[in-house]
Amino acid sequence: MRITVINPNTTETMTAAIGQIAKAHAAPSTEITAMNPARGPVSIESFYDEYLAIPEVLKLVRQHDAESDAIVLACWGDPGIDAVREMTTKPVVGIAEASMYAANAIAPRWSVVTTLARSYHMVEHVVKKTGLGDRCASIRCVDMPVLDCDENPDAVLQGLEQGGRLALQADHAEAIILGCAGMGGMEAALSQRLGVPCVDPVAAGVRFAELLVGMQLTTSKRLTYRPPEPKLRKGMEDSQD
Amino acid sequence: MRITVINPNTTETMTAAIGQIAKAHAAPSTEITAMNPARGPVSIESFYDEYLAIPEVLKLVRQHDAESDAIVLACWGDPGIDAVREMTTKPVVGIAEASMYAANAIAPRWSVVTTLARSYHMVEHVVKKTGLGDRCASIRCVDMPVLDCDENPDAVLQGLEQGGRLALQADHAEAIILGCAGMGGMEAALSQRLGVPCVDPVAAGVRFAELLVGMQLTTSKRLTYRPPEPKLRKGMEDSQD
Amino acid sequence: MRITVINPNTTETMTAAIGQIAKAHAAPSTEITAMNPARGPVSIESFYDEYLAIPEVLKLVRQHDAESDAIVLACWGDPGIDAVREMTTKPVVGIAEASMYAANAIAPRWSVVTTLARSYHMVEHVVKKTGLGDRCASIRCVDMPVLDCDENPDAVLQGLEQGGRLALQADHAEAIILGCAGMGGMEAALSQRLGVPCVDPVAAGVRFAELLVGMQLTTSKRLTYRPPEPKLRKGMEDSQD
Amino acid sequence: MRITVINPNTTETMTAAIGQIAKAHAAPSTEITAMNPARGPVSIESFYDEYLAIPEVLKLVRQHDAESDAIVLACWGDPGIDAVREMTTKPVVGIAEASMYAANAIAPRWSVVTTLARSYHMVEHVVKKTGLGDRCASIRCVDMPVLDCDENPDAVLQGLEQGGRLALQADHAEAIILGCAGMGGMEAALSQRLGVPCVDPVAAGVRFAELLVGMQLTTSKRLTYRPPEPKLRKGMEDSQD
Amino acid sequence: MRITVINPNTTETMTAAIGQIAKAHAAPSTEITAMNPARGPVSIESFYDEYLAIPEVLKLVRQHDAESDAIVLACWGDPGIDAVREMTTKPVVGIAEASMYAANAIAPRWSVVTTLARSYHMVEHVVKKTGLGDRCASIRCVDMPVLDCDENPDAVLQGLEQGGRLALQADHAEAIILGCAGMGGMEAALSQRLGVPCVDPVAAGVRFAELLVGMQLTTSKRLTYRPPEPKLRKGMEDSQD
Amino acid sequence: MRITVINPNTTETMTAAIGQIAKAHAAPSTEITAMNPARGPVSIESFYDEYLAIPEVLKLVRQHDAESDAIVLACWGDPGIDAVREMTTKPVVGIAEASMYAANAIAPRWSVVTTLARSYHMVEHVVKKTGLGDRCASIRCVDMPVLDCDENPDAVLQGLEQGGRLALQADHAEAIILGCAGMGGMEAALSQRLGVPCVDPVAAGVRFAELLVGMQLTTSKRLTYRPPEPKLRKGMEDSQD
Repeated sequence: MRITVINPNTTETMTAAIGQIAKAHAAPSTEITAMNPARGPVSIESFYDEYLAIPEVLKLVRQHDAESDAIVLACWGDPGIDAVREMTTKPVVGIAEASMYAANAIAPRWSVVTTLARSYHMVEHVVKKTGLGDRCASIRCVDMPVLDCDENPDAVLQGLEQGGRLALQADHAEAIILGCAGMGGMEAALSQRLGVPCVDPVAAGVRFAELLVGMQLTTSKRLTYRPPEPKLRKGMEDSQD
Repeated sequence: MRITVINPNTTETMTAAIGQIAKAHAAPSTEITAMNPARGPVSIESFYDEYLAIPEVLKLVRQHDAESDAIVLACWGDPGIDAVREMTTKPVVGIAEASMYAANAIAPRWSVVTTLARSYHMVEHVVKKTGLGDRCASIRCVDMPVLDCDENPDAVLQGLEQGGRLALQADHAEAIILGCAGMGGMEAALSQRLGVPCVDPVAAGVRFAELLVGMQLTTSKRLTYRPPEPKLRKGMEDSQD
Repeated sequence: MRITVINPNTTETMTAAIGQIAKAHAAPSTEITAMNPARGPVSIESFYDEYLAIPEVLKLVRQHDAESDAIVLACWGDPGIDAVREMTTKPVVGIAEASMYAANAIAPRWSVVTTLARSYHMVEHVVKKTGLGDRCASIRCVDMPVLDCDENPDAVLQGLEQGGRLALQADHAEAIILGCAGMGGMEAALSQRLGVPCVDPVAAGVRFAELLVGMQLTTSKRLTYRPPEPKLRKGMEDSQD
Repeated sequence: MRITVINPNTTETMTAAIGQIAKAHAAPSTEITAMNPARGPVSIESFYDEYLAIPEVLKLVRQHDAESDAIVLACWGDPGIDAVREMTTKPVVGIAEASMYAANAIAPRWSVVTTLARSYHMVEHVVKKTGLGDRCASIRCVDMPVLDCDENPDAVLQGLEQGGRLALQADHAEAIILGCAGMGGMEAALSQRLGVPCVDPVAAGVRFAELLVGMQLTTSKRLTYRPPEPKLRKGMEDSQD
Repeated sequence: MRITVINPNTTETMTAAIGQIAKAHAAPSTEITAMNPARGPVSIESFYDEYLAIPEVLKLVRQHDAESDAIVLACWGDPGIDAVREMTTKPVVGIAEASMYAANAIAPRWSVVTTLARSYHMVEHVVKKTGLGDRCASIRCVDMPVLDCDENPDAVLQGLEQGGRLALQADHAEAIILGCAGMGGMEAALSQRLGVPCVDPVAAGVRFAELLVGMQLTTSKRLTYRPPEPKLRKGMEDSQD
Repeated sequence: MRITVINPNTTETMTAAIGQIAKAHAAPSTEITAMNPARGPVSIESFYDEYLAIPEVLKLVRQHDAESDAIVLACWGDPGIDAVREMTTKPVVGIAEASMYAANAIAPRWSVVTTLARSYHMVEHVVKKTGLGDRCASIRCVDMPVLDCDENPDAVLQGLEQGGRLALQADHAEAIILGCAGMGGMEAALSQRLGVPCVDPVAAGVRFAELLVGMQLTTSKRLTYRPPEPKLRKGMEDSQD
């Protein structure tokens, strides 16, 4: 099985870290290819970043679809996931949704702890869109930039601990989801500090992709995720006129 | 007052038609500038189209923000609206949301009639995101492509009538929203055929932008819509390194 | 365009203030007529007040419908609005709903700050009825009577500031709606103190009425808002027997 | 125990019928006083009717509160119930809510079958306000006026049967609520025809009032239902200046 | 009328206390039979306890159905209620749902105060299942075991007071439901301390059962609550092979 | 990895079939032990069946917990899952929830097609409890008993096709979940007939258990799923006195 893991930002060290987690979690027979676009923001911290990153992600999907059995979007925000589902029949997994499914099975209520304070509403949007708003106890923010996960991991872990503790004590959460791909690998330490299971979203994403491929499930082409209509897309690669 | 109306697709005749509706509805003192990106899909009928169009829209916003008092996104789907709100302090209006507000004030329940069948879920997503899911009676589809609004308006109007009638009779709708910028101008004929008020989204969008500017309301910069962080965005115009 | 603005309470100084705001916000060609019933409570602070005020409002509507292009109910609670919609084909706007639409376009989540603590549930009811419960971050109360807006505006403004600050800090609100017609005119000072846009509901109501009239939208007569059946209404003006 | 049953409309034969049902269902020691206002619409079929009727209902409440242990509002719409709760410490029961509680305990999903088609949204509003929207399978309308319950009961019963059957077959309802006080007494025949339990709302209202009085429960005066503030209510009976 | 009140746990002193409350609240002509299973947990404080208790409850139902006009499940959690409804045509009342209906009629928002902290989610589940999640202000926990109600009532009452006060002050509750059958009888003292009406669930359950029987309502046998299919149930009493 | 798959009913051929599917889907290194209780109903088609089966399931859990790395409940209804989560720190997966997660990732809206018509509400309850009600397009019933899956598979498949087609055409579903463990193995044929992906819940359950174990996630013991209190459980195996 070949899983293409796309880090939508352009920070290669982060892609490498994500790839490492992915490989650690994938079955031995699974081939992981982690990649990121050449163009675009080094981190995704706003809707602006997200929308600039998506077309570059879509290009990677077009290039690598044929050689992939599944695609994982490795950014908690599942950016552009609906478009990716239109482009391929392969299963497409967002790490946000996968981490919520995992949390949902081990706790009646869980919280997401993410990076910047400004991301509160972005996270809220993904949770509701996935359909699990009723099970989400709260969203808490570390209020540190995404790249601090790489450069300042101790401080991020401490922020996770603080945010997570508030979620447990004030919001009735019983498990914590790490709300950023860059936090991958901190779940064990966090879990030990907080005394509750913590979910690494990249790990959940890769394993959930394996699950779908293993079940031979494909993206439904019934209606919403039909291939995009061939049409003139001026100045763009797939334009047909 | 200067309102920049952005048609996210690249069909210039559609932009012209949108501009005409916008001017017909704007106050005499309002200056309407309708535009569309040079690059991108000629119609937005999938998430794929949407995500390809958004960065081009964002470029237009960057270029025209200083000379605008408000920005209107003229596509029923309000594509990229959250990012536009991050980029400017000016009010930003999506024609989808504006048309829902108008319908909400004249009917207890309303339906959206849109173009392609595949757009059902896209419309559902916008309705829920705007927060008005409880007031939406149903979503009905004409099942014709967006550009037929231009090229085949009689057939589209007939489709609107059929879809609208089903919404009134089977779904307890009491008003109809035209779910595509391209349907602008058909509201009077449709209203006459169906006997209920029908909402032109472009008209609603422009007038709602005037409302916000008139009230001196600006986009909140408290948290979610703060300006995007300056950062390296590899190969992109606003990159800072 | 002629807009009839009805203050449902009987405090004429408040009607005058509302009329002034309405005129300041209306287009030059719009003729504003602000009025209040001769009978009824001097302020609306309970369901009891509301229900006593409504029939007097309905009388005003009957008297002034013919000469109005739209009707605005200038009390945050939109009292009797469904009945007014039955009585006329003209657009009818409640200042509560209009202020929520405006807030919804400039912030992902907003709070309403109102007068008396007892009004918490009344506000909750209007928010849910309008359909925007998911976007409302919280309801906060100044805990001062409505007429203090007139007589003690500095204290009310201070209360608004306190309530608003709590909404921003504790409830993830990003904009504030003034939840009382009497608070009209305080939005600029409040906005300056809080650093977020604040919505004057009277201004929103009048401008939204202009929007609907301009779009030639009428109240749907399909089902819910059909004219009341002619019937015997014992001892009442419009009784038919 | 003394229960005051208020029929908000002015049709005395309907009040008599309601009183009869109430007495048939009350405990032997309960004293039922059924009454209706002298002024107001002969039937409540619109929001307009409802709002005209409410102040007359409130007058009856003021006159009869001292001699009542509970008050029942005998109109499916629970008109003015929040104001009545402000006026008294006694339990106040709406027949709509009481009938929903009864249905909720005998079926997982139930439907309301009411009179006029235009009442669809009025019923929807009461169901949501009571908080039981998730358990309501559907709202169906007989499309006959309220007074036909009195004058044309066979036709109404036939309409109930048709509407009820659709609710059972198409909407997954498993019990039926008669959505009008005037339908009282038809529940046995309807139940026999449909093969499911049917709820008479007047019976439910009176018995639920007995329940609350028996438990010595009073209306909470904590916040929302505090007594209305004493104040000037120009030209009105309880005005204080 | 004969009402069978089943305490699902095996603590006979608690059954006796429940029976006493039931008798105090039942009509003179109502015959109350309070009982508990011979086997099973002495208190129900976990899903584990609940599921072990239910089959014993079902046995009691089978034995006593013929001689009962209604069945009341006297544990706040309404354990096994759907199965009991399948087994009988008689009305079946859970004290949780009955107490919520009572609270719903005297306050716009109410809270449940229960025993163990771990029961938070169990209570949440019952509230949502009953359909009244929108009216529930909060769930608060005394964090004392169920049997302390018997053995340490003063401490439990103090816990109820603390939890209730928080609900009133922080959560906008206006009435309190005692969230455990064992708390029966504390409502008067609690109400006096908190100044709001408090609901004894056993009292509500018994009186609500009387209401349903009096209305001659039966459990709907349309679909969900049809009698269980006769079938082989290996090693079980009602097995048919 | 050792996964214990519990078929809550006592039909051994069904357990064997479930075990076969489980093995076919598990990783080569996973050891599957499929089992069913010795006592209890041969199929679970009512709440009554469910509650009788659960304590027998709990016994199996107690016996096999130590030798299991995860537990899968192989009945679409996830019977007793909350109690199982209290009894063990291992991940516990219900096939209902797992199948919904899989469907959620391949289609924006999906339907569940189950066996008996009476199960409509049981399925609705599980969907809502899992938190995914917003994504569920509809519930359709084949109206055949569970054991027909074994004895009459062609007819069941035909029923699935009919129900599924209605879900696609009338309810906007885009994928189908087989709503019964006994339907396992029919997903390929059904998918071919309907042209949309169909989810086998047993396969999803086993693979999702592998996912959780692989991630070293455990059931949260923070609050809800703490071990049941040691206590006297009269006449029961784990009683402590």
